Parts: sequence; C-alpha cells; structure tokens
Amino acid sequence: MTSTTDIAEQLSKVVDPGHVLTGGAISEDYTHDESLTVPGRTPAFVVRPETAEQVAEILRIANERGVPVTARGTGTGLSGACVPRSDAIVVSFERMNRILEIDTENHVAVVQPGVTLDQLDEVTATHDLIYPVFPGEYSASLGGNVATNAGGMRAVKYGVTRHQVLGLEAVLATGETIRTGGKFVKATTGYDLTQLIIGSEGTLALVTEATLKLYPRLRHQATILAPFPTLELITAAIPRIVDSGIGPLILEYIDMMTLSAVTAYAGLDLGIPKEVQDTALAYLVVMMESRTEDRLDEDVELLAEQLAELGAVDIYVLPPSAAAQLIDAREKAFWVAKANNADDIFDVVVPRASIPEFMTKVSELAARNGSWIAGCGHAGDGNVHLSIFQPDAEIRYRVTRELFEIGMALGGAISGEHGIGEAKKRYYLELEDPVKIDLMRRIKTAFDPSGILNPGTIFDSGDQP
Amino acid sequence: MTSTTDIAEQLSKVVDPGHVLTGGAISEDYTHDESLTVPGRTPAFVVRPETAEQVAEILRIANERGVPVTARGTGTGLSGACVPRSDAIVVSFERMNRILEIDTENHVAVVQPGVTLDQLDEVTATHDLIYPVFPGEYSASLGGNVATNAGGMRAVKYGVTRHQVLGLEAVLATGETIRTGGKFVKATTGYDLTQLIIGSEGTLALVTEATLKLYPRLRHQATILAPFPTLELITAAIPRIVDSGIGPLILEYIDMMTLSAVTAYAGLDLGIPKEVQDTALAYLVVMMESRTEDRLDEDVELLAEQLAELGAVDIYVLPPSAAAQLIDAREKAFWVAKANNADDIFDVVVPRASIPEFMTKVSELAARNGSWIAGCGHAGDGNVHLSIFQPDAEIRYRVTRELFEIGMALGGAISGEHGIGEAKKRYYLELEDPVKIDLMRRIKTAFDPSGILNPGTIFDSGDQP
Repeated sequence: MTSTTDIAEQLSKVVDPGHVLTGGAISEDYTHDESLTVPGRTPAFVVRPETAEQVAEILRIANERGVPVTARGTGTGLSGACVPRSDAIVVSFERMNRILEIDTENHVAVVQPGVTLDQLDEVTATHDLIYPVFPGEYSASLGGNVATNAGGMRAVKYGVTRHQVLGLEAVLATGETIRTGGKFVKATTGYDLTQLIIGSEGTLALVTEATLKLYPRLRHQATILAPFPTLELITAAIPRIVDSGIGPLILEYIDMMTLSAVTAYAGLDLGIPKEVQDTALAYLVVMMESRTEDRLDEDVELLAEQLAELGAVDIYVLPPSAAAQLIDAREKAFWVAKANNADDIFDVVVPRASIPEFMTKVSELAARNGSWIAGCGHAGDGNVHLSIFQPDAEIRYRVTRELFEIGMALGGAISGEHGIGEAKKRYYLELEDPVKIDLMRRIKTAFDPSGILNPGTIFDSGDQP
Repeated sequence: MTSTTDIAEQLSKVVDPGHVLTGGAISEDYTHDESLTVPGRTPAFVVRPETAEQVAEILRIANERGVPVTARGTGTGLSGACVPRSDAIVVSFERMNRILEIDTENHVAVVQPGVTLDQLDEVTATHDLIYPVFPGEYSASLGGNVATNAGGMRAVKYGVTRHQVLGLEAVLATGETIRTGGKFVKATTGYDLTQLIIGSEGTLALVTEATLKLYPRLRHQATILAPFPTLELITAAIPRIVDSGIGPLILEYIDMMTLSAVTAYAGLDLGIPKEVQDTALAYLVVMMESRTEDRLDEDVELLAEQLAELGAVDIYVLPPSAAAQLIDAREKAFWVAKANNADDIFDVVVPRASIPEFMTKVSELAARNGSWIAGCGHAGDGNVHLSIFQPDAEIRYRVTRELFEIGMALGGAISGEHGIGEAKKRYYLELEDPVKIDLMRRIKTAFDPSGILNPGTIFDSGDQP
C-alpha cells in the first residue's frame, strides 16, 4: 500500500517541496468553494504546479496509485465542484497565472488557467479589446470558468464561455497532454474535444492553457432601468427588444424584493418615487453598448419609446455611476442571499418566454411548502437565479427537486452556469434521462479509465470518504 | 446468417415498403456526395423514414444484426461522409423535412434534419428573422449541416453551425433516443452532448430534430470590393477592420485567378479597369449589414476610408445585383474548380494572420511538385479553400499531406468546414496526435459499441467491403 508520505515524496520530486502541502500546512482556503450546501473537506495533498509538464507528472503519479485529483482555480464556484475528497490531491492553479499572449492580429488571448477575469480585463483594455464573459465575480479564474462553462449577464449578446474558448491544452488522467482547437473559430476535424471538456467540471481533463476569443471594446455604454407592473410584461418585452436589432449587452430582470435587498446592501438609492415602487413588481435592466456616442443616444431613445409601448411604468436612464453600482449590486445578489441566510441557491435555465410560468409555479410551490423563494435572472437567456429559505433539509430537498422538475418540464435544465458539482448531483442523477447519464459515464471512462478525476462531482463516486 | 431479404422485410415492417429500397430500385443519387475523390458506392438498402420512432426502430434492427448505417441529407457534402458501404443501410432524411416550429418569443426554429437551408430561409424571412449559417449551398439540409458543422462566409460575424444549434433529438446506435440542450443558450448540466454530436459526421448518432438560434434579419446590406496589391496587405487589414467595430458580415479574399474564373463562369463583369486588374493580385470582399440605411452608409464610408489607408488599390461599392452575383459566384467556386477538372479540393483552417505564410508555402510546395494550387478563402476566419490540379494520385497524395502539415504547423487544422469524411481520413489518421485519435475512438465506442454508425468515416473501419 502506498503511504501518504510516499506520495508526498513523489510529488515533491515534480514540484518544489514548498508547493506540496500536507496535513496542517493545508489552509482552510483549499477545502471549499462558495456553495451553501457542500461542506468543505481537507484534502490529503495540495500541489501548486508551475507548468503543464508538472501537471502531467502529478496526474501520472495519481493515476498509477489511484489517488483522486481535484483541480482548483480561485474557489469562487457555487456547486462544490472543487471540494476535494479527503484522500485527494488538490491541483491548485494559483501559480499558473500568466497571460501568455494577447494576439491582436487574430484577436485571441492565450492564458494559463490561474489567470483571473480582472487580470485579463486589465490587460485586454490596454489593447481596446475585451473578453466578454463576466459571470459576476471578477476574481474567478479562467480555468474555473472553462470547467463550469461560466455565463453571466452578457450572455445575451456574447454567449457564454463555451462560445469564446477556441482551443485548450489539457492533461488527461493518464498524464497525456493534448491540444485541441486553435486560433480559429471553425474546424470539422474529428470530435470537438474543446467543447466536451468545457463544462465538465474537472471530471474529464485538467486544462493547462486556454485560447480565448477577444472582441473590440465598445467604449460607449448606457443603462436603462424600467419598472414594470408584472414579470409577464417584462418577458413579453424581451423578444421585441431583441427584434429591434439594437443588440443589448445585458437584459436582466430583478424582482421587487431582490432590488430592494441588493440596493440596501449596496447603500444605493436609485431615486425611484414611492408611487412607482408601489406599482412595480419587477424591474428590467437593459445595458447597451455602441461604438459611437451618437448611435448610443439613438438606441437609448428607440429603446425608451419601445419600453413605454411595452408597458413600462417609467423609464430611468441611469447616470454611469449609479448604473455601475446597480450592476455591481445585482452581481452581488448571491452575497446578499448568503448574508440573509438563504439555505440554498439555484440557477435553473428555461426557455426565456417560460420565465413567468416558471416563476408562478415556483411561487405556488414555495407557498405550498412554507418556504420562501426569491430572485432575479438573466431575462434575455432564461437563466433564473433563485434563493430558497427553508431550514428543514428534507422539505428543502423535496421543494428543490420539484423546482427542477418544473424547469425541466418547461424544456429547461437544472443549471445554466453554476454546474452540477456535488451540490446538485442528487437531483441531477434522479431527474436526468438515465440513457444520457449512462452515455456520459461511458464518455467519462473514455477520458479517465481509473476514475481519478474529481470523483463525486456530477456522478456518484461510490466510495466517497 | 441474416439475408438481405430478411433485413428488407424487417425494415418494411417499420417503414412503408415503398420507402425501403434495394437492388435496382436504389437510384444513383444515393451512392455519392460531391466529393471529387470518394467514388460512389451503392448501399444494400435505402430507407426513407418519416418519424424519429422509425429511425430508432431502423437502428435497433441494424444494431442487432451488425449492419452499418449511413445517414443522408441532400448529399451536398464534400468529404464523402455520406457515401455508404455496400452492405449498409442508408437512412435518407428526405421525408423528414418539416419545419416544426418558428418560435418568435424564444427566437428559435425547430426543424427536422431533411429541411433545407433555402426552405428555412424562406420561412424565417416572413418573420423578419434569419438563420445565419450559409455554407454556400442553399440546397444543403440542416441535418447535413449539423453533421459537418457547416460554416460559410458569414462565420466571421455569426460563427458556424456549432454556435447556432441549441439542442438536438438524436438516436443512438442502440436505438435509444436522447434529447440534448433546449431553447436556451446556456447550460452546465453534465457533458455537452449537443456539441459532441455536431461535426461528428454521422459516426455518433442520427440527428432527428434540431433547435436552431434565429436572429433579427437586418435589411440593409452593402458590399465593397477592394483590389489589393498583395494577399499580405489584405490579411493585415482584416484585424483593423474588425477593430473598427463595424462588425462585417463577410470578409472574403479571392485571388486574381479565382476571381477571373468565377466571374467568367457566372458571366459577370465587375467593370474593374485593366490597370487595376494588372496591379491587383488579390481582392477583398466586405459585406456589411445594418438595421438602418443611415448607419450602413456611415459604415461604408468609414470602411472605404480605412481600406484606402490599409493599401487598397481602389474601392468599389457594388450595386446590389452585382454584389449578389459576386457572392453567388464566389459560393460556386467549387463548381468552377470541378468544371475546370480540379483533382481535389481542400479547406484548411489556419489562424487568419497566417494566411499569407500558408499561401506562400503552398505556392512553393505546388511549384516544387509540378502541381497547380489556387483558391480563395474566408479571410475573416482563416479558412482557406484551395483546388489542386495534379492528376498523378501518388504525387497528389504527397503534396496534399505536406499541405496539411504546413497548415497544422501554423496552428491550423485539416478542415474548417468540409469535414474529414472518407476523403481526408488517410491524412487525418497519419497526421493527427495519436493520443487524440485513440481518445476519439473511445468516445465513438461509448456512443456506438458495435461500430455500426458510418464506419469508414473519420476512422478506418477495418473491413470496408
């Protein structure tokens, strides 16, 4: 039998011993992510490699000995996908945090997995370019974004991580390194391994480099806040706004309660008169961007007219600072939920036109079960973020399961961007088509025959210690 | 042993006997696609199902008996991926040609695989919407587009098929039917089976329904033709045009020879003076679209100024009819090559900034081997379409292999949109990383344990009759 000491010694031959941690040297930071329901667990080892070659060596060691491996970015995930098993090696990418290239001819960035979104944003800005995916947490790492197919508010215009990743370098469980895709948007040259690895939550391969698409950074932005009497009216307005061709950057709805909570949390006064507040059950936030000030002004005017026709109670063109604060506050909705002791959070996705039906059914469900559920969502893409307040675990399980069933019956899916991880695994395995689960397990085995990569995430591992 | 008669009888219990063809009843149409190098083969059976349930039954019969199955759309492919084995069942989707839904609230179309691009375009136009992928052949079927991840000229703005397909219904080799994705742009709920099936050339599953993203149809379009002294100048201009934020719909380059061939073939006179023709080695075609006439005019002006600064010899804003004819002629470049007796065609993809280096090396390669290679390409996305004139098969094989090696060494891939099929398989299996090939074979087995789906496409089947 291989001892912990023996494995640590092997790892220390690959990575500087100061970056191979065991026992008390492993700080609490490595034990958890931001999930509300997955308890942290201290792994047996934390290794901080500096190169893809080291990652490959670590995986070879782990694969030979059957030791589980969990990849870790900055730990901002919400599904417990980077919570390790207690016998696992955590491969922390904090030292692989270099932007290897900003290629302004091909409009791509090549990054290591530990690069954070704010780090990338700062550098791309100097080239008047942008990597447009912002899942709301700027300290998130690109490796984590790839693992969860991170989305966020700008998905309505730019799509999600999946649409921006052109290529990967990834290490398989066997320690073999592959390169997929490249600095191009199209290829039909065998199966798309890039797309398969994206969103696989560390269960198929460890990403050691990503090639990302960049866009021109449009400097002119405006934000409109429009209170509506009902969520139904907001949902009905969305396709008409899209039809207009103005190409909104952000289309969010915030329910009355959530708006009041997030603005209070941020100390933000939007100056909405009380009589408007009294009639508005839901708020639509539209952010637009344009390459010239004139076009932006035109678009704002067009949108304002359209929103009035579509039933908005009023229309506020927010001053830039208030707009930034509101978007920031909306992005922090999770922290508000956490501060208010929410018991769990969801990010179901449904066809965007089905949001009101989903929300009506969810409200009925909550009322029927003495639970409280509130939230906001990406109205442009049907991704609804909800918090549930129900301390009883058994009731919460039943309500949650039914909530997912409602979403799936409307043609939706359990998670738009958080992922299944460990947090939603039970529901996923119970509710998803078993034919697809079996197929995915076979794909998992095709990548990772010994099952060492992030066991217990998405699928059951059978022997979780 | 199962006889052909027995299988035909089984199939006739599933599909109306008039749609189960054998022997002389199988027309030549079912034996080939448009590949220049893959000879047609008559299958043992052609079945024309009407429903997904029938497709599932057909696959159950085939899987039980180990009979290969090749899916067929309208046969416009260029890699021989729908050329069947002589013992195969061809599942022709010509009767599954219904547009099931145009959903203007969620901006999606739901189509059967036999729907053609022109059929879909006609219907979306009545809703002021568009499905933006046009691989240059309007008679192509959506099922075929999904199988090959079809691209085309508009990829620089809208991406390729992969970016537009939100969900699929697909039948596995075992006859089990799965539904993937849905009417939404994001999900992180297990592995992305939609993306894995797209571009798999009929080797993983048979698609029986696709949910496609639609966009507002922008009615105002303009086309600029700009002759340049060199291809290098065109390539250098591309990123600067993208930087400007005008968001071009099409960015194509056409070399002098190809322009002259395609315009002659189409009987099109662009009125370019002889002195310009004499100095222009390459032409850039930029098509723009906008939601208002004013903005389009502004964009045309901006682009014209920019092109002049970037070294264009002259700038022609084409009248709409000439523009349409030129684009059409460019789309028909393949037919011109075929009419001129080209021996093979390629569609290598390289990082777009590497197009000149690629073309220089390809010209040297051709000259060194007494071959002639010419073409045009999607300058905006690095996808280069070339024809080779070299009747000697052995020399052509060597030149082709080296051409692919040059592309791959520049960070590119063998095919941007045609696919590997049977036509490029030998090169693919020789040049691609064996670790990836093995991984893809394991994925293939995860989907299709008996190997009945399109054997001989992408991978060798071992026992090709």
